[in-house]
Amino acid sequence: MASSASFARASGEASNQISLKSVRETLIRQEDSIIFSLIERARHPYNAPAYDKSYLKSSGNSLAEIFVKEAEHLHAKAGRYQNPEEVPFFTDDLPSPLIPSYDYPQVLHPTAASVNINKTIWDMYFNELLPLFTVEGDDGNYASTLASDLAISRRIHYGKFVAEVKFRDAPVDYSSAIHDKDKDTLMRMLTFERVEEMVKRRVEQKAMVFGQEVTMEDEKDGIVDYKVNPSVVSRLYGDWIIPLTKLVEVDYLLRRLE
Amino acid sequence: MASSASFARASGEASNQISLKSVRETLIRQEDSIIFSLIERARHPYNAPAYDKSYLKSSGNSLAEIFVKEAEHLHAKAGRYQNPEEVPFFTDDLPSPLIPSYDYPQVLHPTAASVNINKTIWDMYFNELLPLFTVEGDDGNYASTLASDLAISRRIHYGKFVAEVKFRDAPVDYSSAIHDKDKDTLMRMLTFERVEEMVKRRVEQKAMVFGQEVTMEDEKDGIVDYKVNPSVVSRLYGDWIIPLTKLVEVDYLLRRLE
Repeated sequence: MASSASFARASGEASNQISLKSVRETLIRQEDSIIFSLIERARHPYNAPAYDKSYLKSSGNSLAEIFVKEAEHLHAKAGRYQNPEEVPFFTDDLPSPLIPSYDYPQVLHPTAASVNINKTIWDMYFNELLPLFTVEGDDGNYASTLASDLAISRRIHYGKFVAEVKFRDAPVDYSSAIHDKDKDTLMRMLTFERVEEMVKRRVEQKAMVFGQEVTMEDEKDGIVDYKVNPSVVSRLYGDWIIPLTKLVEVDYLLRRLE
Repeated sequence: MASSASFARASGEASNQISLKSVRETLIRQEDSIIFSLIERARHPYNAPAYDKSYLKSSGNSLAEIFVKEAEHLHAKAGRYQNPEEVPFFTDDLPSPLIPSYDYPQVLHPTAASVNINKTIWDMYFNELLPLFTVEGDDGNYASTLASDLAISRRIHYGKFVAEVKFRDAPVDYSSAIHDKDKDTLMRMLTFERVEEMVKRRVEQKAMVFGQEVTMEDEKDGIVDYKVNPSVVSRLYGDWIIPLTKLVEVDYLLRRLE
């Protein structure tokens, strides 16, 4: 019994419809993906050479930059960025898909395509977050390392869908702040502290569940050593994912009436 | 507190040493990775067009073949196949790494490089396993789909390390069967039914833990709906991963004295 993260399938909605319930389900499901990817990434140490621009003498780019850019080219050929939920880090010169275009539901305002804070996410992830949950060292597994490094961007840019559903719920209230380009009011309208606290508690709980050693009764040794520190996951959401998602929401709303 | 799957780091062993304990830890850790990847894959339906050779009219290859081959080229550039734990599906024409070579511990016999059952794994995964844990349908997310499809090969080929540690533990016993090319005796020597049963129970348990909906107290609705059927995971190990790992072990041992 598999469930789908694509809200259109999950909810059976008409192609331009969107509900708070389906958006919420998608956000909750993406928490699992993010925590799985943090746990996978934490198998390896920090692996500094992968992020060091001076390591590959000839190019001036880090292996991370080269790897992500080429991976995005490949994913573009498989049609990844036809899906409005997907936002590339390197937007220039992406190749066309090899496949016929898939009929994704078009629920966002067309200006959504220009909302992209991946530069901010890149800096946050590699400079601030990664050192918090990896050990120092270099195990040489840069390809595996880099393949685990990309789940957070999708989650943050899903803020476009969050903003769209909130806008549709109260278009008059939002339109007034949008016309005034009043970011503070928009941010206040988008902020629900009780929900944010619940999300932070839930992801901490998930990090405990998914990051535990699961052993059979006869193997238990009584030590609980989580694969990623649950408080780091809570902080990831509180300090970065939630604020950056709201930044995407505000960016999206400011262009919503163009 | 991150732990590493690289047994050399995890155990602090000298570069050509290997212990049953470190091999076992790596195998257990890879169970988590496999179950995470199944749960991620199960977010999407079967997505038949990705595996259909006739879908891309011009090429004669499926999108899956093109995608995996190009992804392996990229990973080769990042040095992935320098690690003796990593085995590509498409071995021809892999590019050289862009990076200096990393000093991986050399614990395997040199003939290990020729042990590769990825053709068998490919057919098993796409034809037999995937329909068991995905729903029918097509959500267009072929790139995400294909990126989740590759964790099992690494686990099965880790049988080379399992075989090496078993061989070192009883070289005289194994050498006799190897000289006689006696596959049945080797298979019998490699089989520990009690351990296999424990692995199957443990991965079923892990699928329950990692595949549950983790909710806060005030959200609970009492329904448990696992993201991947735990009995499918147990069957994946019992019917495929364990037997194919032993096939790799036998293949490796047959070349161990060359």
